[in-house]
Amino acid sequence: MIYLDNAATTFPKPEIVYESVLDHMKGYGANPGRSGHKLAIEAGRVIFKGREAVSRLLGIDNPMQVVFTSNATEALNLGIKGTLIGGDHVITTSMEHNSVIRPIKALERVGVENTIVECEADGSINISKIEEAIKKNTKLIVMTHASNVTGTLMPIEEVGLLAKKYNLVFMVDAAQTAGVYNIDVGKLNIDLLAIPGHKGLLGPQGTGILYIRDGLEVMHFKEGGTGSKSQELSQPEMMPDRYESGTPNTPGIAGLTKGIEFILKEGTAKIRGHEEALTQYFIDEVKKIQKVKVLGPMDAKKQAAVISINIGDEDSSEIAYILDKAYDIAVRPGLHCAPVAHKTIGTFEQGTVRFSIGYYNTKEDIEKAVSAIKDICQQI
Amino acid sequence: MIYLDNAATTFPKPEIVYESVLDHMKGYGANPGRSGHKLAIEAGRVIFKGREAVSRLLGIDNPMQVVFTSNATEALNLGIKGTLIGGDHVITTSMEHNSVIRPIKALERVGVENTIVECEADGSINISKIEEAIKKNTKLIVMTHASNVTGTLMPIEEVGLLAKKYNLVFMVDAAQTAGVYNIDVGKLNIDLLAIPGHKGLLGPQGTGILYIRDGLEVMHFKEGGTGSKSQELSQPEMMPDRYESGTPNTPGIAGLTKGIEFILKEGTAKIRGHEEALTQYFIDEVKKIQKVKVLGPMDAKKQAAVISINIGDEDSSEIAYILDKAYDIAVRPGLHCAPVAHKTIGTFEQGTVRFSIGYYNTKEDIEKAVSAIKDICQQI
Repeated sequence: MIYLDNAATTFPKPEIVYESVLDHMKGYGANPGRSGHKLAIEAGRVIFKGREAVSRLLGIDNPMQVVFTSNATEALNLGIKGTLIGGDHVITTSMEHNSVIRPIKALERVGVENTIVECEADGSINISKIEEAIKKNTKLIVMTHASNVTGTLMPIEEVGLLAKKYNLVFMVDAAQTAGVYNIDVGKLNIDLLAIPGHKGLLGPQGTGILYIRDGLEVMHFKEGGTGSKSQELSQPEMMPDRYESGTPNTPGIAGLTKGIEFILKEGTAKIRGHEEALTQYFIDEVKKIQKVKVLGPMDAKKQAAVISINIGDEDSSEIAYILDKAYDIAVRPGLHCAPVAHKTIGTFEQGTVRFSIGYYNTKEDIEKAVSAIKDICQQI
Repeated sequence: MIYLDNAATTFPKPEIVYESVLDHMKGYGANPGRSGHKLAIEAGRVIFKGREAVSRLLGIDNPMQVVFTSNATEALNLGIKGTLIGGDHVITTSMEHNSVIRPIKALERVGVENTIVECEADGSINISKIEEAIKKNTKLIVMTHASNVTGTLMPIEEVGLLAKKYNLVFMVDAAQTAGVYNIDVGKLNIDLLAIPGHKGLLGPQGTGILYIRDGLEVMHFKEGGTGSKSQELSQPEMMPDRYESGTPNTPGIAGLTKGIEFILKEGTAKIRGHEEALTQYFIDEVKKIQKVKVLGPMDAKKQAAVISINIGDEDSSEIAYILDKAYDIAVRPGLHCAPVAHKTIGTFEQGTVRFSIGYYNTKEDIEKAVSAIKDICQQI
């Protein structure tokens, strides 16, 4: 199997990730922060080491500002709904995933207004359109760092400066970039950063991260046992307990920590370099094929390692099915949970066949994928 | 290490649970329900097998009524907040965990009234007090199946009939009982059932379950990608997707499924029999020790395998510390995230030393624990 569905979840993970999950489960599988015995303390230590690793990777000063969630969707819901109240206005883009669009649409019920800024056909955004969308009651700008459909990189540095200028909260969805691109929350003026643990960070599924800037008020949406201030009937205010009720995914976080340590050791420059080279090679080869239409910027410098294509008017699901059955190549067809993005790039009906490259892919994988696409084009 | 903190998380798990987690991560670590390729389909199949196993264990007719959550706290928040709106009234008991009490208290902000029915000093409840608490606007009764402090079993069968009689929604927190006691949601008139995956069900941390009775309207509190109806900007209504936005904890659910299959094979009668015998032996031995005060029913037929004790007026944390350091015995001291329960049993200041027994504990473990308690009593 050639796995080119890394934008959904990276696979495989570094061996040390598997080992670390198993180590926790078998060796010290206690509940962190709930008791004082040796195993519980060891479990708690692992969670804290996880916060430290996340902080090192993202330029976060205080590890206690790192909240573990079950996935990026939860982190996005928490950040978006914890910031906005009735009467507020939020700005986002037409390249967002449903994990951004759906919470924003749901908030219309309680009187939160939104503007979805229209992007170009390659997924890029004209930043002046964001500035024009700012109103008196605008509270938040939330946007992806890179589209999960076309890979298009968004100008988060410039938008961060804009948010700062207008004193707006700035939230970034780094689902397709964290662990591959260098992200420094301070330098980029990011107030809220949502990340899945199981994509670029190379951790297990069931993990996610929300970074919350120190001093930013974010309302929690779950209450429960925190292992801290147990005597109180209201949710404790302290970070990160306020947002982490109930038993965490300790084995998942143990694995995620090792994934991040692996990235810190390799360096994002090396990881990015590898993915960029394969992405450019793939784009260069497939755009030569007559029936193939490549969506997005078609430039690995301007996009993450996510490439959407279509073959003539063929249904994207049909192409993905053939790739899987006849060539043992795993890709993802359809709308990729981002319908507005597909409207933007003009593929709402057809969907796209998405190839997403990970650090463990080789040039041979890409050559075989290109060859399969050529084959299919000849047969169709 | 003698592990007697199974009420926080069971440890160890059956070997097959570890293997299954690893199998998913290494063998088919794709994203379930997001793509159509072989690995994604295999991941999706595992999630569905998980729903089937949960259904078999709990007498659930339709596996699609099983929602996977990150823990029981999330399941409780979802069930409680998804059912109640301003103007409603909810009834609960004074033996609840903060994962029930704190969401209910938080709902006071939006005008949801509550009655916390006072329990007896052994944790038991007089069911007529629940009936007396029912008002015109009562919508929900939510209560634990067994206290996480004293183990006291609550009369959920009778309360289920009461809820049915008055047409109220009945929610049960089975954090201390699922996997050990026979629970049939139909027979017990349970509308909502919250369960952690990592306690009696012997699964990994990072997993939880909410059963929702077919036809019951429960509002979701997270929106995002569901892999279904991707074209829609509003959350899909279909079960269980409506409540499961974002990538699930697939390796965790794979492990949990094996934990449940292990329980189905052993049978809850055998598991309960083992835990009951050890619980009664422990109670009988420690209640003979002069300085020891045993809280709760002191009868293994009336309580789950959770026993709280105190030694004279000694601080519970101090005793737990000695048990860990000098005897290598893991227990949990303090308030166990259930302050109202400690007020009920009169231990709010001192807390209790909680011994919680699991299926993997042996009689020798309990003998050593009893011997350690005797030792400590002599030295203090």
